[in-house]
Amino acid sequence: MKYYIGIDIGGMSIKAGIVDEDGNIISKSTCVTRVLDGKEAIALDMYNLCKEVTAIANLEQKDILGVGIGCPGTVNSQKGVITFAANLNFKKVNIVKEFNKHWNVKTVVNNDANCAALGETKFGSGKEYSSSLFVTLGTGVGTGFIIDNKIFEGENGEGAEGGHVCIRMDGEKCSCGQKGCWEAYASATALIKQTKKAMQKHPESLMNEIATRKGEVNGTVAFEAYKAGDKVAEKVVKKYAEYVATGLVVFINVFRPQVVMIGGGVSNAGEYFIEMIRKQVKKKVFAGKINRIPNVVKANLGNDAGIVGAAAPVMD
Amino acid sequence: MKYYIGIDIGGMSIKAGIVDEDGNIISKSTCVTRVLDGKEAIALDMYNLCKEVTAIANLEQKDILGVGIGCPGTVNSQKGVITFAANLNFKKVNIVKEFNKHWNVKTVVNNDANCAALGETKFGSGKEYSSSLFVTLGTGVGTGFIIDNKIFEGENGEGAEGGHVCIRMDGEKCSCGQKGCWEAYASATALIKQTKKAMQKHPESLMNEIATRKGEVNGTVAFEAYKAGDKVAEKVVKKYAEYVATGLVVFINVFRPQVVMIGGGVSNAGEYFIEMIRKQVKKKVFAGKINRIPNVVKANLGNDAGIVGAAAPVMD
Repeated sequence: MKYYIGIDIGGMSIKAGIVDEDGNIISKSTCVTRVLDGKEAIALDMYNLCKEVTAIANLEQKDILGVGIGCPGTVNSQKGVITFAANLNFKKVNIVKEFNKHWNVKTVVNNDANCAALGETKFGSGKEYSSSLFVTLGTGVGTGFIIDNKIFEGENGEGAEGGHVCIRMDGEKCSCGQKGCWEAYASATALIKQTKKAMQKHPESLMNEIATRKGEVNGTVAFEAYKAGDKVAEKVVKKYAEYVATGLVVFINVFRPQVVMIGGGVSNAGEYFIEMIRKQVKKKVFAGKINRIPNVVKANLGNDAGIVGAAAPVMD
Repeated sequence: MKYYIGIDIGGMSIKAGIVDEDGNIISKSTCVTRVLDGKEAIALDMYNLCKEVTAIANLEQKDILGVGIGCPGTVNSQKGVITFAANLNFKKVNIVKEFNKHWNVKTVVNNDANCAALGETKFGSGKEYSSSLFVTLGTGVGTGFIIDNKIFEGENGEGAEGGHVCIRMDGEKCSCGQKGCWEAYASATALIKQTKKAMQKHPESLMNEIATRKGEVNGTVAFEAYKAGDKVAEKVVKKYAEYVATGLVVFINVFRPQVVMIGGGVSNAGEYFIEMIRKQVKKKVFAGKINRIPNVVKANLGNDAGIVGAAAPVMD
């Protein structure tokens, strides 16, 4: 069996784990991200985590064939440089070089959404496919494109910013400063806004009762009310599925992936929601009567996606 | 010097020419496309054109290193198959096989917009670059994506349909049956519609006078009136530039090409129009303050783009 280490650097914590060639996590550990202490501190903590997970797995450093790093922001994977990552306060940081000062092992770094996309394609819901689109519907909308089992990151790793394609000119304001971005319609944050708006307009909707019980309006309110038969919630959920599909179709028309994988909190709503997206995709895709329409499925790596995804690119 | 043949098959005519390794056309000829007579007739006509242009150039068949075919529709270049081309009445036609019955030479086929994109990148306005986006603003909106000097056509050649990404959900009807496609806002056809609408609303606009003089409303009316200082025309032209830029930015955010090349009739409006698009792109691109913004330029191969583009892929 071949072993690798995946390191998932987030703004709050660093997670690391030994991953075998079949995508199983053998051991894992975590520590807080010392953002204020800078790249040297973070590289050292990464190395210490590597030693720890190797020991837990009863392995030695020489057994590890490579280390893969996943992190947010813009990453130039060919140069090993994190061009910009606001959460980490990183600007043009050669994280591979920093890490290799501690341990001279084959090391690669990639954007975390791209890592998750490759992990899902190699070991998760996309494992029967070689080209895929992975989308996370969370606070924002993250996208990862896999072509021929490889991450597509755009020139200098500056592309693949799928959340910020415009699906409605002059539309909703987006956190990026533009108007009408897909993220402003298809993120969980957007769904909550859409839910609140419908609740205000329809005080009789079950969504109000559910939100009061929960003590907040979150991404599950509309789905719960829909399942209980609430007509207003049905409208919210169906429109939201249409928003999600509209963005997906942009990328299907351009990339024609074999499969589309939906991740993030919202994807847990249930198979009926995935089916709604599927139907809308079928309706909206270009030349859908002639060309193959990719299937839409729920991503299934869940919490492991970060570590497995980070390790995936170094396995090639 | 190395020689190739480029064959540009259109719904009306087939154009062929000898192209040298520097992208110069040495000789050319043309014939009508016998759509009703089917693939055998078209393949034979292609072969006869090849013999003709070879003779005109004082070359022999053995001097030709390869034949490149460009045609409209969905093309699976790896298999040499035109999957679907409405203009040619072709469905799953292996045009390479048909052609090779007459002449067993290295032959490739690609979608014509993709060919034009590669031709422009190798020999035209993009020749200093290796990754590019080529857009033609004509009756429709065609797109071609070049990554690392290669055509990106999506899985099975079914992708790269940039004209049909949605930029305004629930917006203008598109010829493809969907609503809000980029093509429905950024094609010359769309510009004419926008011009007509503004003319009706503003009978005092100079555009009315210009259109009367021309005997029709075409894609140049708004530009002419704008240059003459007409305020209504200025609004039309500026909004149209914004429509063009909105679609471009979708692809810039995903691909981050080094250069964007604008072709088609509308691109002849003048440098001031290209500059308008450039400004809007700058304004709309994601993380434009951190990432490099590709330059926007006018395509410059003009009438030669079809033949040179068709030959370009066979030169590799």
